[in-house]
Amino acid sequence: MKFWRISSFGVDKLEMAERPDPQPGPGEVLIAVKAVSLNYRDLMVVEGRYNPKMELPRIPCSDGAGEVLAIGEGVSSVKVGDRVAGIFMQNWIDGKPAAAKQKGALGGDVDGMLAEKVILHEPGVVKVPDHLTWEEASTLPCAGVTAWNAVVRTGQIRSCDTVVIQGTGGVSIFALQFARLAGARVIGTSSSEEKLAKAKDLGLDAGFNYRKNPEWAKWVMQETNGVGADLVVEVGGAGTFGQSLKAVRTGGTVAQIGVLSQTSEPVPIGPILMSQIRVQGIYVGSRADFEEMNAAIALHRLQPHIHEVFPFKNAPGAFQAMAGGSHFGKLVIAL
Amino acid sequence: MKFWRISSFGVDKLEMAERPDPQPGPGEVLIAVKAVSLNYRDLMVVEGRYNPKMELPRIPCSDGAGEVLAIGEGVSSVKVGDRVAGIFMQNWIDGKPAAAKQKGALGGDVDGMLAEKVILHEPGVVKVPDHLTWEEASTLPCAGVTAWNAVVRTGQIRSCDTVVIQGTGGVSIFALQFARLAGARVIGTSSSEEKLAKAKDLGLDAGFNYRKNPEWAKWVMQETNGVGADLVVEVGGAGTFGQSLKAVRTGGTVAQIGVLSQTSEPVPIGPILMSQIRVQGIYVGSRADFEEMNAAIALHRLQPHIHEVFPFKNAPGAFQAMAGGSHFGKLVIAL
Amino acid sequence: MKFWRISSFGVDKLEMAERPDPQPGPGEVLIAVKAVSLNYRDLMVVEGRYNPKMELPRIPCSDGAGEVLAIGEGVSSVKVGDRVAGIFMQNWIDGKPAAAKQKGALGGDVDGMLAEKVILHEPGVVKVPDHLTWEEASTLPCAGVTAWNAVVRTGQIRSCDTVVIQGTGGVSIFALQFARLAGARVIGTSSSEEKLAKAKDLGLDAGFNYRKNPEWAKWVMQETNGVGADLVVEVGGAGTFGQSLKAVRTGGTVAQIGVLSQTSEPVPIGPILMSQIRVQGIYVGSRADFEEMNAAIALHRLQPHIHEVFPFKNAPGAFQAMAGGSHFGKLVIAL
Amino acid sequence: MKFWRISSFGVDKLEMAERPDPQPGPGEVLIAVKAVSLNYRDLMVVEGRYNPKMELPRIPCSDGAGEVLAIGEGVSSVKVGDRVAGIFMQNWIDGKPAAAKQKGALGGDVDGMLAEKVILHEPGVVKVPDHLTWEEASTLPCAGVTAWNAVVRTGQIRSCDTVVIQGTGGVSIFALQFARLAGARVIGTSSSEEKLAKAKDLGLDAGFNYRKNPEWAKWVMQETNGVGADLVVEVGGAGTFGQSLKAVRTGGTVAQIGVLSQTSEPVPIGPILMSQIRVQGIYVGSRADFEEMNAAIALHRLQPHIHEVFPFKNAPGAFQAMAGGSHFGKLVIAL
Repeated sequence: MKFWRISSFGVDKLEMAERPDPQPGPGEVLIAVKAVSLNYRDLMVVEGRYNPKMELPRIPCSDGAGEVLAIGEGVSSVKVGDRVAGIFMQNWIDGKPAAAKQKGALGGDVDGMLAEKVILHEPGVVKVPDHLTWEEASTLPCAGVTAWNAVVRTGQIRSCDTVVIQGTGGVSIFALQFARLAGARVIGTSSSEEKLAKAKDLGLDAGFNYRKNPEWAKWVMQETNGVGADLVVEVGGAGTFGQSLKAVRTGGTVAQIGVLSQTSEPVPIGPILMSQIRVQGIYVGSRADFEEMNAAIALHRLQPHIHEVFPFKNAPGAFQAMAGGSHFGKLVIAL
Repeated sequence: MKFWRISSFGVDKLEMAERPDPQPGPGEVLIAVKAVSLNYRDLMVVEGRYNPKMELPRIPCSDGAGEVLAIGEGVSSVKVGDRVAGIFMQNWIDGKPAAAKQKGALGGDVDGMLAEKVILHEPGVVKVPDHLTWEEASTLPCAGVTAWNAVVRTGQIRSCDTVVIQGTGGVSIFALQFARLAGARVIGTSSSEEKLAKAKDLGLDAGFNYRKNPEWAKWVMQETNGVGADLVVEVGGAGTFGQSLKAVRTGGTVAQIGVLSQTSEPVPIGPILMSQIRVQGIYVGSRADFEEMNAAIALHRLQPHIHEVFPFKNAPGAFQAMAGGSHFGKLVIAL
Repeated sequence: MKFWRISSFGVDKLEMAERPDPQPGPGEVLIAVKAVSLNYRDLMVVEGRYNPKMELPRIPCSDGAGEVLAIGEGVSSVKVGDRVAGIFMQNWIDGKPAAAKQKGALGGDVDGMLAEKVILHEPGVVKVPDHLTWEEASTLPCAGVTAWNAVVRTGQIRSCDTVVIQGTGGVSIFALQFARLAGARVIGTSSSEEKLAKAKDLGLDAGFNYRKNPEWAKWVMQETNGVGADLVVEVGGAGTFGQSLKAVRTGGTVAQIGVLSQTSEPVPIGPILMSQIRVQGIYVGSRADFEEMNAAIALHRLQPHIHEVFPFKNAPGAFQAMAGGSHFGKLVIAL
Repeated sequence: MKFWRISSFGVDKLEMAERPDPQPGPGEVLIAVKAVSLNYRDLMVVEGRYNPKMELPRIPCSDGAGEVLAIGEGVSSVKVGDRVAGIFMQNWIDGKPAAAKQKGALGGDVDGMLAEKVILHEPGVVKVPDHLTWEEASTLPCAGVTAWNAVVRTGQIRSCDTVVIQGTGGVSIFALQFARLAGARVIGTSSSEEKLAKAKDLGLDAGFNYRKNPEWAKWVMQETNGVGADLVVEVGGAGTFGQSLKAVRTGGTVAQIGVLSQTSEPVPIGPILMSQIRVQGIYVGSRADFEEMNAAIALHRLQPHIHEVFPFKNAPGAFQAMAGGSHFGKLVIAL
């Protein structure tokens, strides 16, 4: 079976390789991968910015969906032919986050999904909703679950709330969709009028072009009658955190997601205190979160938004598109 | 009646003045103030650092206790002779925080408690536990309620948890006491071996002198078998926020209290995300919080820790002691 | 001004009376009532079944909406001409329930809304959404807030959840609407195919006629793939509680609302334990709940469902219709 | 190895048998059981009252502690020589309850701990605190975790709260201990002055002999200044549920635990609604709960209270003592 691997860092150094098909041991599941989707983290991994000390070679990408080809002894929750995805952190099955549960992230701590066939242990595999294509299903494990966690599990957004999204990347568009399912008003920022128009087609109630004015927190205040938003889904980028703190209401939440923001930036701590803000770090979610999200997606026949699909042989093209940053929704590689 | 006022900013410019005794209108309560306690915020107010645009003159100090001298028409929850304190934010009676509820903080938005007699509206007054002296009761409204909110209401600390306190100021010592009541293990930092020893007398399980090593987060990790603390009560000061983020466990909480930290400092946002930390701004609490705290204080006959008591005529001396920063527990002014 | 009063119990003994217009004192609001809506409780009050020892005469009805005619000294949150409703419990403004807050229910502990003009204290008055007619606005205080509390505040219903409603009375139809806003799947029971068909028009996903089979819990299990519902909004009636306990999933919630169920019935306690069920008593809600509900209603331009409107002079006719029990949605009296 | 089994129901029909020592397969742990403790459920199991259709023969008892003798391939969380206990429901590892997680209870769905050697799968085994004897450690899995769940996880008891316990059985005494750790005031009922005196030695603040007066709810009201308790740990028995509903405060919680109460009893549903009570079914807890409880027990060097220890060969004697009901704390069988 063929797979892509990082032998040295850099998108242009990704190499396709081949090895014998793996066989599932006890408790393991063999998956024929049908589609893989990219997150910004995957680009950082490939470029060596996520973890410069990562052991190489490594198969990249956390998010993929496929068909169960074979199951090992004792596996009972899935059977051959089932449509499944891997969970992002293979050891966070349920309950509260913990350091040990965060070990084992696909395409980071361990080999990922950018391969024709992968082996995962049974708890690390979930069935995906029937109505989704392979490409759509592949977008769920990181971007989908992260947005679900931000908006639903920890955000607990209600039909009287206002949510702010930033830009139109994968997490932001999922956050828009999940917040709308929960009945919230959703407003958002972008650098592009065209993207704002597209987001409105997906349910965005109001949009703001931060190219015109980087002080978008003032706009949020206007849009909320001076109260501020209940939740800002903060996906990062230079200077957004300070604006987010100004854009939430007293007692509101900033869901801090952005791997973009890994560098230190001067943060005004005062508003956190004075406005009693909760800044909640969100790092994907558990298998249990994934399954609850799937139930909502299936119930509402929600469709993940895909920007472009690349063939497996042109996987590096998908990473280049991610680096370009002009996508709206998800970039997917089909096998 | 006599009172202290800020006519222009500066501890040395505090002036004592006199005016006729006020009379309670409908729904109002007249209190003969018996003791006032200081918070760092009060020093900032007097020095003009809290709100440089504050309208002057203003009577400073949020925290005071006294005896009800008279009640206005319709007042039913207190009667003449009751021992009471004012609540910090006169409009935050109950429920979730909101911008409107945060208006009306004593000794800030409106005149405070550093006066022989004060008038408050009925909902802004609470009875204090019987076993407390006036001096002890005066320490509750800001420092006590803030610590209660950090440890109990939003911290939800349990008997399997570890809490970190910073220094030995009023909020930190209350946090130590409330966390111990909740059965938690409490560890803390200080610049002074002597203060650490005193804190151990009050129940501190382990102490660390950050003079010896400013990287106290590593010590917290050692003390928690590499897991990290469940809660850090972050009262601020240069560079502590970054250490606090390193000292909490995955999924843990930093209760952000410190008015000391109002200036921007470069904050590494990455750990908030990667460790799924909750940074929760805490700005005192409601009247309902105050009453729940009082119930706990009464049940356990808990005693607030007072560092020094100053006479009313030497109120500025108390502010100077606060500026000096060598206190352990509360600075109180007796009337 | 004219008003209806209970001088002795019984719908046929309701009497219309007249007295001089009241004038608002300090902190009070005078409202010209435009519409009043009925709850089953109001019928029980009139018939003497709610509180046989109630002091008479009493003006019945908790739910009404109208226009502010005059405000007393110090009132700042509403002005003349505002469209408002009274809150059910005049003393439950915010925060957690408490015995003292539950005192002062309109049309029970104190005089209610079935009058041309009423006086309420300022915190007991809330503005109603602009898009609602007077009749629609009058349905919110008890039925609306109760359903909001059951589904949103304590139910915390999400877009992956299934909610069961019972019948098609006021609370049940509001619960259907709020649960749908939150993205839930809603299924329900009725004794009438016609009502089930109407409920489907309002978003009911599946309906069950309990006339055909009183064991509706089995149907809920089938509809939820053997898992059970996340929430049953239990409005009572003979034998429903036991079915509700069988219809919820392990760890699910029964929101216990039904004043119909005030008599003792043999309850099988075993399932509560074995399925770790939460039975949560719901008794309307606070002013803060009312305001959050209003925000959701305004955002979604949600319309309360009115069954029939009676003229003020025929108020007893509305009570008779309530006793008849064949309504779908709310019964309203217009002034 | 020797073990006790139920071949037909009845304490007098318990039979000791022998079979070859089992060997751990992949992912399994072999434990040399050192002590087993009884719960009322175990008596019900043996008598055929818990599940009359249980497949026989079956090894009874859910709660036991012992030493790891051998581990199967892949086991990493425990090693030979570790002191461990089994978790009650072998499949409830973490997170919220669910029907599937509740399958696999020891000594019920599957063979239990009343054997010299048992095999459990790795996630079903937890280390026990070092300071406990084998007898003490054996009391934790059902009685300890149930009380922890009632008081801490779902009860969220704080240092301002009042908790009511019923009687002096295993769960009640653990509830007393955990509630005291959390700083609560604990009061309780018993039929025996002697037991009340003993409970006071363990921290009970006030006791009431229900032999003198079965209406103990009135006493709770007196003890709480007419407010009611925050939590009643309801372990069942005839008529207690109705008293519990009268004994909690508005908005309070009844933790429903009692397997004693499996038969239907007429329950007055009205108070649940009118006092907005939460009745929360508690059925032991997860492995994660067990580990948090262990952390608290270790921190406080808490000691489970043992009434009497029986030798393995006299296991039926322990069941007879359970049936007698005169114990205070736990009945233990030592191996």
